[in-house]
Amino acid sequence: MQAVRELDAGIVIIGNEILSGKTVDSNSPFLAKELRQVGVTLKRVIVIPDELDVIAATVRDFHQRFDVVFTSGGIGPTHDDITIEGVARALQRKVVRHPVLEEKLRGYLNGRPANDAYLKMADTPEGAELIADGKIRFPTIKAENIYILPGIPDIFRQKFLALKSRFSADPYHLKVLYTREYESRIAVFLNETLGEFPDLLLGSYPKNNDPEYRVKITLESKDQSYVDRAFTHLLSLLPQGCVVKTEG
Amino acid sequence: MQAVRELDAGIVIIGNEILSGKTVDSNSPFLAKELRQVGVTLKRVIVIPDELDVIAATVRDFHQRFDVVFTSGGIGPTHDDITIEGVARALQRKVVRHPVLEEKLRGYLNGRPANDAYLKMADTPEGAELIADGKIRFPTIKAENIYILPGIPDIFRQKFLALKSRFSADPYHLKVLYTREYESRIAVFLNETLGEFPDLLLGSYPKNNDPEYRVKITLESKDQSYVDRAFTHLLSLLPQGCVVKTEG
Repeated sequence: MQAVRELDAGIVIIGNEILSGKTVDSNSPFLAKELRQVGVTLKRVIVIPDELDVIAATVRDFHQRFDVVFTSGGIGPTHDDITIEGVARALQRKVVRHPVLEEKLRGYLNGRPANDAYLKMADTPEGAELIADGKIRFPTIKAENIYILPGIPDIFRQKFLALKSRFSADPYHLKVLYTREYESRIAVFLNETLGEFPDLLLGSYPKNNDPEYRVKITLESKDQSYVDRAFTHLLSLLPQGCVVKTEG
Repeated sequence: MQAVRELDAGIVIIGNEILSGKTVDSNSPFLAKELRQVGVTLKRVIVIPDELDVIAATVRDFHQRFDVVFTSGGIGPTHDDITIEGVARALQRKVVRHPVLEEKLRGYLNGRPANDAYLKMADTPEGAELIADGKIRFPTIKAENIYILPGIPDIFRQKFLALKSRFSADPYHLKVLYTREYESRIAVFLNETLGEFPDLLLGSYPKNNDPEYRVKITLESKDQSYVDRAFTHLLSLLPQGCVVKTEG
């Protein structure tokens, strides 16, 4: 295979409301798709409670393990908004009030007094970078390789889209086929294909009760010709007539 | 507070298809709700790739950390179905072919020959328990505190519902209020309530662009009278007229 530009990522979703089943996390599915589109390999998503020691330990682990880390949630004005403190602790930094953010927050009030809870939103891990962009109202806080994003889905999306151009790795090339055959009968051909193409990302996804197909098979690689050759190889092995359609 | 029966849990979602944005995980949102209903505290959800060492390390960590662990995905006949091996490795056990499962699998074939890939679905970590139930077609494999469930959502749900009566802890009691006030203005009252009721689970969830309310506040405890008293206390602190509605 050719040398490829790789970048990997982890997502930390901070929120009791997801663990307790009150809310469904839509931020990680959104980000998974977006990252794939720009060739970034998402390695882990974790959902953790609003607990300082858990946030700090998890973020520290992800920070060391992955090229890029995104956190979602816990950055508002209330008692359960402890992500900034958690990230600071993960990086062994202090929490400081950022003058640029404080000015921005005071500006929104048009001279009305600011309370402590409100100004807490100007806190950052010491030495953090602010990423401003014409399209977003409030800068995104970045500490080391950690992008700290809000949990509210609209703002999460808006903020990521403003950051998106920063992330770029070689794209994945995907080919898909759908077959009427049972998964257990084609497993041998999948294994044989992997034997020939060991670096292939090969997925096999059975679907229950679909009139059209029984298994969806995905072949991926960052090397277009590699995935094309693997696809042709697999097609040549599969029983005549079992492939319903192909994509890519 | 009264003594309460507690049980905590972690969910391990095994699947490249979720990390690569091809599929959205619906199993963990389903299970989060179900567990909450029976009073079980979900502490962690993690999505990991189909990689043996990652599965083994993650399952081992969850096995040690939580009372109950659920895995989702990776138990079919193909090359990427390595959950059984991962769980076995996490528990330092061998993988063995289970005679009961093998007989069941052969039975489905009505005398037609079984291939290796197909029979792989009879593998279990050594010493695993089989949980059969009239309503499910194939027994669920349990090793120590780990319930190994399939990724296909229909079957995942069916299998969990057949297991559900095994899990029971004291229920959470939830009260909710919706307010038109900004979150930063009521943060002080939330903090004061937590000062009085330190064991309260208190959530604050702002909503953008909703004509009805700005923040949803949830109060929870396994002690009904504790949550009732905290709720009354918080209501007495909030500015007149800012509460739009209450639930619970």
